[in-house]
Amino acid sequence: MSAIQQNVEAASASYSASFDKGHLALPPAKKYLVLTCMDARIDPARAFGIELGDAHVIRNAGASAVEGLRSIVISEQLLGTNEIVLVKHTGCGMLTFKNEDAYGIVEKNLGQAAVEELRERKIDFLPFPELEQAVKNDVEFLKASKLVPESVTISGWIYEVETGKTRRVV
Amino acid sequence: MSAIQQNVEAASASYSASFDKGHLALPPAKKYLVLTCMDARIDPARAFGIELGDAHVIRNAGASAVEGLRSIVISEQLLGTNEIVLVKHTGCGMLTFKNEDAYGIVEKNLGQAAVEELRERKIDFLPFPELEQAVKNDVEFLKASKLVPESVTISGWIYEVETGKTRRVV
Repeated sequence: MSAIQQNVEAASASYSASFDKGHLALPPAKKYLVLTCMDARIDPARAFGIELGDAHVIRNAGASAVEGLRSIVISEQLLGTNEIVLVKHTGCGMLTFKNEDAYGIVEKNLGQAAVEELRERKIDFLPFPELEQAVKNDVEFLKASKLVPESVTISGWIYEVETGKTRRVV
Repeated sequence: MSAIQQNVEAASASYSASFDKGHLALPPAKKYLVLTCMDARIDPARAFGIELGDAHVIRNAGASAVEGLRSIVISEQLLGTNEIVLVKHTGCGMLTFKNEDAYGIVEKNLGQAAVEELRERKIDFLPFPELEQAVKNDVEFLKASKLVPESVTISGWIYEVETGKTRRVV
């Protein structure tokens, strides 16, 4: 067992020993979802004030609404959420490369067969050159999608990894 | 401003007031990623023992390795992680419907144009009928992908929303 796996087991023993939230329902109590980045420096529950059971939390590289669209539709259409809080962040890795750079790295590290799998799966890494514009673009993407009805409230934010602050953009 | 948005602003003021982690680096310090579900009843940081800055956390409907593959490749190839902890959970919404059910709900709620957008984007909701098998299948999917080298350690787990425990499956 790896050190990481041992850490999961130790955390589980400790967390479950004082766990008293086994009664929570499947649908989020506050009927909203947070879409944010996978970045290791973000703790959504504390930084954005999410109590256990209150909201869906979708996380991926760059808080991408495109990658997350399947999950967003499930959240809204099957589990009743009606508000989206989209949070990108300062210092995001997605600001540091272009799609062709990532394809080049995959080819160098993993070979041509891996690049072909990227192409077969039509994987776009969806990097962005400017943070505020990327927040606006993803909010616009959601508003333009027929899969997100106009009744859904959408806001776009930036979390500052340097200060722990979250500020609204749109 | 909605009540949810006001809650984000209040959480931000409180969290940033005592924030002292502004020095953390972009790459995860412990070089691993956790892939888990967006479910509102999961707090990955506490349940799985993730300290701020230690690990990428990818979350989507059902902890899907297929939806998350783009983010996993970015995490490994661009940000140096080399271990995946995949955690699905009891009581998951993905156990409760079939793909055609979800398409039917989208058609009923949002109309035919929304269904066409699902088809254009080739969105498969990726539900699963059995939990342990779904964990095994996603671990196998990752091991079979040319985008995940054999040097990456992968384990599959189930979090119990009733007890707060996390147990290893594979």
